[in-house]
Amino acid sequence: LYNDTVMDHFMNPRNVGDLENPDGTGTYGSPVCGDMMQIQIKVKDDVITDAKFKTFGCGSAIASSSMATSMIIGKSIDEALAISNKQIIEELGGLPAVKVHCSVLADHAIKSAIYDYAQKN
Amino acid sequence: LYNDTVMDHFMNPRNVGDLENPDGTGTYGSPVCGDMMQIQIKVKDDVITDAKFKTFGCGSAIASSSMATSMIIGKSIDEALAISNKQIIEELGGLPAVKVHCSVLADHAIKSAIYDYAQKN
Ligand code: FES
Repeated sequence: LYNDTVMDHFMNPRNVGDLENPDGTGTYGSPVCGDMMQIQIKVKDDVITDAKFKTFGCGSAIASSSMATSMIIGKSIDEALAISNKQIIEELGGLPAVKVHCSVLADHAIKSAIYDYAQKN
Repeated sequence: LYNDTVMDHFMNPRNVGDLENPDGTGTYGSPVCGDMMQIQIKVKDDVITDAKFKTFGCGSAIASSSMATSMIIGKSIDEALAISNKQIIEELGGLPAVKVHCSVLADHAIKSAIYDYAQKN
């Protein structure tokens, strides 16, 4: 059901936890399953220097957030905003159709964290 | 959102993994979220002597399966079959309404494991 990349990011998730003094915090709750995602970012000179996530969500949500946070670290705000849910799934090598809503959690939480950062600056 | 009992069973799940030579194996996939649950049981003299679960599901699924497997170990097949989803949630001290479908995974997988055992015996 799940490929090796998804399983790796599920079993060894990157960037799990909280940031001290985050520059932006985003949360998003899935209307499909009720799961919540929190993503926090650190920003310096318009570049995302660090990102962490926390979730009570399923393996696909964990794998997607692990991948998504890895993808945005080192990117500019504009580059990070341009990353689509489809790209996260592509980097994961695919997800079962029924689990696409789990990867949307990461995508939306990132956008919400960037929005929070923009509002504060 | 989640009480201490749920968080404890999520952070320190009991009975995770596979059994060697299980007497019954049940799997169930949620039509709501697409997550899968596997539960295996060992049975001796009509009593469930051990149980293990594996899931790619969310925190609520993990907490429910941890609690449900703990509840059936030491019970007779009939007693285990009589355990309802409502009782699992009660033992957990409650789950948010939107997460009830996650606890159903454990309930259905147990029934499926017992059915598998019954078919083989
Ligand atoms: S959302 Fe799928 S098991 Fe909880």
